[in-house]
Amino acid sequence: MNSFGRLFRVELFGESHGPSVGVIIDGCPSGVPFSASDMLPALARRRGGRPGTTARVESDEPLIESGVFEGRTTGTPVLIRFLNRDQRPDDYAAVRHSPRPGHADLTRHHKFGGHHDPRGGGHASGRLTVGLVAAGALAAKLLTPVVIKTKIVQLGGVPTPETASGESDVPSEAQREVIAAAAAAEDSVGGVVQCVVEGLPAGIGEPFFDSLESCLAHAIFAIPGIKALEFGAGWSAACLRGSAHNDPISPATATGRPLTTADVAAHGTNHAGGALGGISTGSPVVFRVAVRPPAGIGRAQQSVDLCTGRPAEIRVGGRHDTCIALRVPPILEALTAIVLYDLIRVHEGLNTVEAPARSGGLSPRGRPRRPR
Amino acid sequence: MNSFGRLFRVELFGESHGPSVGVIIDGCPSGVPFSASDMLPALARRRGGRPGTTARVESDEPLIESGVFEGRTTGTPVLIRFLNRDQRPDDYAAVRHSPRPGHADLTRHHKFGGHHDPRGGGHASGRLTVGLVAAGALAAKLLTPVVIKTKIVQLGGVPTPETASGESDVPSEAQREVIAAAAAAEDSVGGVVQCVVEGLPAGIGEPFFDSLESCLAHAIFAIPGIKALEFGAGWSAACLRGSAHNDPISPATATGRPLTTADVAAHGTNHAGGALGGISTGSPVVFRVAVRPPAGIGRAQQSVDLCTGRPAEIRVGGRHDTCIALRVPPILEALTAIVLYDLIRVHEGLNTVEAPARSGGLSPRGRPRRPR
Amino acid sequence: MNSFGRLFRVELFGESHGPSVGVIIDGCPSGVPFSASDMLPALARRRGGRPGTTARVESDEPLIESGVFEGRTTGTPVLIRFLNRDQRPDDYAAVRHSPRPGHADLTRHHKFGGHHDPRGGGHASGRLTVGLVAAGALAAKLLTPVVIKTKIVQLGGVPTPETASGESDVPSEAQREVIAAAAAAEDSVGGVVQCVVEGLPAGIGEPFFDSLESCLAHAIFAIPGIKALEFGAGWSAACLRGSAHNDPISPATATGRPLTTADVAAHGTNHAGGALGGISTGSPVVFRVAVRPPAGIGRAQQSVDLCTGRPAEIRVGGRHDTCIALRVPPILEALTAIVLYDLIRVHEGLNTVEAPARSGGLSPRGRPRRPR
Amino acid sequence: MNSFGRLFRVELFGESHGPSVGVIIDGCPSGVPFSASDMLPALARRRGGRPGTTARVESDEPLIESGVFEGRTTGTPVLIRFLNRDQRPDDYAAVRHSPRPGHADLTRHHKFGGHHDPRGGGHASGRLTVGLVAAGALAAKLLTPVVIKTKIVQLGGVPTPETASGESDVPSEAQREVIAAAAAAEDSVGGVVQCVVEGLPAGIGEPFFDSLESCLAHAIFAIPGIKALEFGAGWSAACLRGSAHNDPISPATATGRPLTTADVAAHGTNHAGGALGGISTGSPVVFRVAVRPPAGIGRAQQSVDLCTGRPAEIRVGGRHDTCIALRVPPILEALTAIVLYDLIRVHEGLNTVEAPARSGGLSPRGRPRRPR
Repeated sequence: MNSFGRLFRVELFGESHGPSVGVIIDGCPSGVPFSASDMLPALARRRGGRPGTTARVESDEPLIESGVFEGRTTGTPVLIRFLNRDQRPDDYAAVRHSPRPGHADLTRHHKFGGHHDPRGGGHASGRLTVGLVAAGALAAKLLTPVVIKTKIVQLGGVPTPETASGESDVPSEAQREVIAAAAAAEDSVGGVVQCVVEGLPAGIGEPFFDSLESCLAHAIFAIPGIKALEFGAGWSAACLRGSAHNDPISPATATGRPLTTADVAAHGTNHAGGALGGISTGSPVVFRVAVRPPAGIGRAQQSVDLCTGRPAEIRVGGRHDTCIALRVPPILEALTAIVLYDLIRVHEGLNTVEAPARSGGLSPRGRPRRPR
Repeated sequence: MNSFGRLFRVELFGESHGPSVGVIIDGCPSGVPFSASDMLPALARRRGGRPGTTARVESDEPLIESGVFEGRTTGTPVLIRFLNRDQRPDDYAAVRHSPRPGHADLTRHHKFGGHHDPRGGGHASGRLTVGLVAAGALAAKLLTPVVIKTKIVQLGGVPTPETASGESDVPSEAQREVIAAAAAAEDSVGGVVQCVVEGLPAGIGEPFFDSLESCLAHAIFAIPGIKALEFGAGWSAACLRGSAHNDPISPATATGRPLTTADVAAHGTNHAGGALGGISTGSPVVFRVAVRPPAGIGRAQQSVDLCTGRPAEIRVGGRHDTCIALRVPPILEALTAIVLYDLIRVHEGLNTVEAPARSGGLSPRGRPRRPR
Repeated sequence: MNSFGRLFRVELFGESHGPSVGVIIDGCPSGVPFSASDMLPALARRRGGRPGTTARVESDEPLIESGVFEGRTTGTPVLIRFLNRDQRPDDYAAVRHSPRPGHADLTRHHKFGGHHDPRGGGHASGRLTVGLVAAGALAAKLLTPVVIKTKIVQLGGVPTPETASGESDVPSEAQREVIAAAAAAEDSVGGVVQCVVEGLPAGIGEPFFDSLESCLAHAIFAIPGIKALEFGAGWSAACLRGSAHNDPISPATATGRPLTTADVAAHGTNHAGGALGGISTGSPVVFRVAVRPPAGIGRAQQSVDLCTGRPAEIRVGGRHDTCIALRVPPILEALTAIVLYDLIRVHEGLNTVEAPARSGGLSPRGRPRRPR
Repeated sequence: MNSFGRLFRVELFGESHGPSVGVIIDGCPSGVPFSASDMLPALARRRGGRPGTTARVESDEPLIESGVFEGRTTGTPVLIRFLNRDQRPDDYAAVRHSPRPGHADLTRHHKFGGHHDPRGGGHASGRLTVGLVAAGALAAKLLTPVVIKTKIVQLGGVPTPETASGESDVPSEAQREVIAAAAAAEDSVGGVVQCVVEGLPAGIGEPFFDSLESCLAHAIFAIPGIKALEFGAGWSAACLRGSAHNDPISPATATGRPLTTADVAAHGTNHAGGALGGISTGSPVVFRVAVRPPAGIGRAQQSVDLCTGRPAEIRVGGRHDTCIALRVPPILEALTAIVLYDLIRVHEGLNTVEAPARSGGLSPRGRPRRPR
């Protein structure tokens, strides 16, 4: 179905060329300062308009419809909408009859009996990720001081220079060239993005099915275009011996306090990628995703006419990203924040030892502020 | 938490050295012929005792406690238990004070405040996967004629020969050698396993969060030791151009009937790995997982004494797998069957057009058989 | 939390005096004709403006933001918004400092630490039920030909005449008088509403926890002001002997086809109220709810000043319903439709015997229509 | 489906005459002292053998299969089994062909296509409630010092004397007579049971769908034989004016600390029954249930032969309760404890303001005890 999370739950709605898209968040604690300005930086990083990204540029102004009063969350559902302004649904007339290769046109045609919205992918559009980024901004605020950082590892087969500094979402000179060459050829390129989470305490993640990796993977493979995911040593672990792969446990890691990055640095390796047995170790959570080249390319492709069943060449209109991997970092950070905050709430919900009943009162939040 | 699935739900219970382990299944349709013999083949493939696997050999006799009457499921929860017979909890006395590197000992110590069962990993043990294989046998039966096949792609860095025939879980000569060498060195090795699902109709998988890949990934990363997962072209997709990555749509794929393997073969590529936009295409679902070397090795490792905080060398007793990847295939098949059957039920639950109310009666199952 | 349903899921959002209120529906099948006109009749029945109901009259124009394309549902989330136009938030300035007796002001103050929206009850307002009625209109359409009917049994202690005909939501002469008298005294009255569901096939409802009555009760007690609920013989069952309470089984009820109302009439009694063992019998589902008098009354009441802790007399501004029971019928019908449709989907999802995989294709919906 | 709860989840399994019945509990915190002796008192109160209850007497010895280590919960699923020893499945041979009036035989026949276990109701048996009582004992322990008390209000139409003291589950002299008379006539009687929860802090219950009353009602209507439920003033609220029904707010109720029973006594009324807007007020939670007479009676009843479709007289063998209301109190207490503990965990999970990440560490439970 279309929602995610156990206590901090997000659900997306909208179609690429419908009136609006957005997100509804259930389970946000009350009293959290939250306004549009909390979302704008990540929304700006997600937006198109840069070289290699779509020419469709929406203002992406978040409209908070509910759940916030006088600048703070109320504890009831938060609905955030984004109007679709820069629409050109006519670009997609051909798609209706001839599904685009690599897109969800044909699978949605099968699943929904032909009743899906074909304009720009409808609900199955990268446009929907704007709601994720909005919800992620709220989750990230709640997660402080846990820090989630991404960097682009390679684009179009060109690795990011080790010495690269500055903004992590900005491609290197060589990467820009390979993207530009693909764009000139009405083609597209993929890439690899890495995410590192610092400051997550040890003990997060539930036994077996809701392991830390399981929950992250569930959310991450919902991002359109993700083809692969690895944690820590990842694929290379398959070629290591256990004695090389096991991260040694140093005394610093057993001090009784959550592990710090410094502790981890001290013992050298983090092949586990921050989780053992599905539970966070206190070391940084490290994972990488492979992003496929966008399916929407300008050049002619082979398809079929759904009415006649005959082969049909298709040229897809619309405004495409040459490299969607450029826009993945803020989305990956948002989903990671959503997943980790939810897992923390579940852990706390399950394991807070001083239950309200036993301590004679509610949690600290239970001490209400005075009305103004 | 500890359960998985929306309509076909499984939950595992038990500890490696407790009285029993097993699985409870909610949401199984009634009237399905089911007995221990349906589970035995997959259980035998999962069992230890072969070269490279643990010397602990349990009889793994499934005890069906509920939900089956006169050889058919009743529609109420199915509980399957396995007694733990071959226990040697004393092997784990040292673990209590000194967590094993690469295991969940320390993370569980943090999460559960020291109250976990430390014997053989307790609940965080490969022993728990016996319940998965049992539930998977039921799911696989319900999925017929969808076929799920796995093969080992490499072990300890040694690829499986392309020409290999016979049982897919049996290592090649060269692989057996690398495993034996590791075992001799009191060490362990990893591997890669591929899974192919044939016959899944187009249209399975839910929009956004419950995409086909998301649900599979959620379950698969719950398997102890999985470090990476890729679908279809996977990592290599990150280096392809869109024109090369997009699978062309041939007329055969739009015949109005679910796609067949033959159709797919006809148009040559399946870079998508059987899903587009999170929904099955009708082509085979193809994915690969990286399995790390088992953390439990016989040789001395660095740990810490939890009581004193001082460094401690640890030698882990117990009976270990040298290569857990050898036992992953039946587990991977079981989880895949559980996930796919659940997604099919959800799709049917959501989209069956002839609702009982409208067709004037229940589904075919609603025509009760006569009592004998 | 704030959502309901397993496959057909609804979640409400908004505050009484915020920008908008509404509902998001996940799990609606695709291809269902749906537009504002499907919702207008029930919305009109819920609206205020009649004698005994609030003077706040909203236009209640449903805005479908997503999930509908060219007049049919797409299978993705349906978001329906209602703008709040007739707002007078200043009516509630006093409420901020002095909670209203019988309202949720003080409980929300405790729960949310003083961060709730106090204007007109915020999220805890009857205003939110407009979204329920909208979602119920969609569910009722999907349930056809199951028919859900309500009637007012008593208002302010005055029973509805047995011979009453015409619109069931319209109070009798004597009832109007008792309501008018209460209004004149700046006071309010309660009532009892009965609901009868005809045409529900036998077999709906899940074993134990998701019994038919459980799921209905869960939803119904979410309606603000419901204090009691009984099924079939209800309270009087506690005084009957088993031989009198058991509904005899006549041959007509075991014909192998779902029971009809005629069958039921034939054997005379329906003490069970349409469910046995939590599963529908095929007889009409019958239940009654007690609605308390609205808490919002104009006369002076005793409260407390939250800042000083001293007693405070409060006179509540705002526009109140004298008798909320008058507006309960369309809300009760909506929730009943939502619950029953969800239970039907779950039953079908669990028990459809011809799984797509086995019948070689998807459900009938899986035969896509041709694009126009 | 067959499970209940968001964080503290229980699922029942088993059939009345199968090998065993029981419960699996997911989401129990670790470190809670728990053993069979915690369950025995409530199990004894539920057991048959007294006048008016079934002659089937099981030893009801709880077997803890998992989730407890060295006398404390581990944080992983707790499975508790009860062997079925006193079985007489042959008593139910006739039931197979002729469904019992008032039982779920016919509805299960429809729902499960004739594949249910007909012996003693199979899964739809009061026998299953033994697992509820076991899980409730764990929940009650976690809820301390919240106290849940029940009393029988009437049996067979005979009210419990106001002055009654001693054990609340013991019928009065007049009640015993009416039960004995029914038993002598091979008939059965119903009753009413009241439940009062003291010490629940204000603020428990979630907005709209997971209101305190909704969650309690969901669980309570799962108990076989419950026909009606009312909170606080209940049905009588429908006849009160608002000025009489509203509980006045006295200064003592707004001291900033959770309300106590003493506070409530001070302001005299608790028509709300302990919840406003679906959230606990801090006053006692008060509700009453109507229990129907048991359907299983010895005298001849009208049924049908499922094979021939002809009328059939049926005499039900088996050992019946004359008055199931006598055994409802411990079951009602157990479900109430399960629901309230889950709602407290959800409230804490959602609203604990000092998130682990922000306070630099896990909850108090996060300070692990030293291994012994």
